[in-house]
Amino acid sequence: MVHDVVIIGGGPAGLTAGIYVKRAMLDAVLIEKMGIGGQIIVTDLVENFPGFLEISGADLASKFEEQARKFGLEMKTLFEVSSIEDNGKTKTVKTSEGDIETKSVIIASGTTPKKLGVKGEIDFTGRGVSYCATCDGFFFRDKEVVVIGGGDSAITEAIYLTKMAKKVTIVHRRNELRAEKINQEHAFSNPRISFVWDCILEEIVGKKIVEKVILRNVKTNATSELKTDGVFIYVGLIPNTAYADVKKDEWGFIIANDKMETSVKGIFVAGDCRVTPLRQITTAVGDGAIAAVSAERYLEKL
Amino acid sequence: MVHDVVIIGGGPAGLTAGIYVKRAMLDAVLIEKMGIGGQIIVTDLVENFPGFLEISGADLASKFEEQARKFGLEMKTLFEVSSIEDNGKTKTVKTSEGDIETKSVIIASGTTPKKLGVKGEIDFTGRGVSYCATCDGFFFRDKEVVVIGGGDSAITEAIYLTKMAKKVTIVHRRNELRAEKINQEHAFSNPRISFVWDCILEEIVGKKIVEKVILRNVKTNATSELKTDGVFIYVGLIPNTAYADVKKDEWGFIIANDKMETSVKGIFVAGDCRVTPLRQITTAVGDGAIAAVSAERYLEKL
Repeated sequence: MVHDVVIIGGGPAGLTAGIYVKRAMLDAVLIEKMGIGGQIIVTDLVENFPGFLEISGADLASKFEEQARKFGLEMKTLFEVSSIEDNGKTKTVKTSEGDIETKSVIIASGTTPKKLGVKGEIDFTGRGVSYCATCDGFFFRDKEVVVIGGGDSAITEAIYLTKMAKKVTIVHRRNELRAEKINQEHAFSNPRISFVWDCILEEIVGKKIVEKVILRNVKTNATSELKTDGVFIYVGLIPNTAYADVKKDEWGFIIANDKMETSVKGIFVAGDCRVTPLRQITTAVGDGAIAAVSAERYLEKL
Repeated sequence: MVHDVVIIGGGPAGLTAGIYVKRAMLDAVLIEKMGIGGQIIVTDLVENFPGFLEISGADLASKFEEQARKFGLEMKTLFEVSSIEDNGKTKTVKTSEGDIETKSVIIASGTTPKKLGVKGEIDFTGRGVSYCATCDGFFFRDKEVVVIGGGDSAITEAIYLTKMAKKVTIVHRRNELRAEKINQEHAFSNPRISFVWDCILEEIVGKKIVEKVILRNVKTNATSELKTDGVFIYVGLIPNTAYADVKKDEWGFIIANDKMETSVKGIFVAGDCRVTPLRQITTAVGDGAIAAVSAERYLEKL
């Protein structure tokens, strides 16, 4: 049996693509390596997806899932993709649970925030530890936060956080930033931002929520404590795209045009795992809809 | 007083941009020439915006509006924009209610479907008359529909409708189509599509819902009746962009890059009025979020 579309990834992008392809009466299956919902499941409170004043990420994911199910989308969890074989008019999606034959593929497998791997990091995720200032910054109004990282994401998001937090401390393991010069200048001239150089995060400490961080100076090896209400970690995102043999940027994000077409005919991409200026639920659902319509038009012409 | 951002248009794109700019603590005002909500207000039932199994367009618009208001977005209705003056670091938005000074502008003023201007068209809108197959096609499962138009939109959407409707009749005022050859071929070879050539729609007739259409042959001047459950009108969309002096395509849709930046620094665009492969609520909210974040970064560097 050859499916019309296989959607890889059960987050907002994949589920929206699923809703659209099923409404177009295509035969589709969505496969997900973990549980349906994707990254938003770990987001405590979503306030910036239009239509919901306040909703937990998990509840929003359930609603997306229910809607995809209503239109008859078949969903399979715990299917991990190892590769996609391009046979021209058909593709073979190789998974942990066997091969799936399909005429087209929508890749929506998202990203994984790079973890630091320090003590307290996992325990306090959603309780002071965050990987997304645009998502969670608003909860730190008039509070103090620490940002870990020295690249463009860390600096841009630190500047963003100064609009809410009263103090933002950037902790970087080197004595200079990697970020664009103009971003650096803005950070340096921002009175709410201070820097701790040559330091790495060693531990995140608190009772129910984050209370302080323990830092270690990589030159002197001395440790120090810093009181804080939040820790934003920007040491990179890892796109979940290793299995896909399509054109990517140097970090592995998939390159697509505005129709979500990748470099391989019949393979489309949507959401966080593509090269895009913003990674939000709003942008994921937009991408998912476009990828679905593009897949449908591709199948129509096949 | 000079605002940080003026958002033009109160549909899904503008309201989402509003939510995002207010969460970034910017000073913003949204202006709308009619009522808040945009085009979706006339959509009877929305089933393809993730998060809502079934919701009326008007109810969804209310939810978007409430959320924007919660974050403190100032909204002004019955403000019609006549032009945007670019003074470099500031812009003057000239409106029917006076001038508004701002550092940046997000254009989200949408489109207006071209009306045929025939009898019954307005009365039956939402009760059999539609301008969007992706939105409403699903409601015509196993029914008969008429598509008016001969361009790519009409033909693509007619093909889309064959997945639901049992019969699709394309009525075109000429004896050949304007659409891409490959689209034409697919339509001609589709057993569910038939054509009525050289005819224009003269009247849409029914009691509570559409029951039939009256056609007139432009060559013989003879009229004929055709029973139908629905009429999809694709005689074009008019982007509401006449006031904006930025780069556009030949139809007036605004050209932007993936950051929603137009050809004028500090002027951004989101939603249906830009050049984009798909015009849906999903894509509008994605665009709105990106335009807002781009405006914020622009202001940061100003």
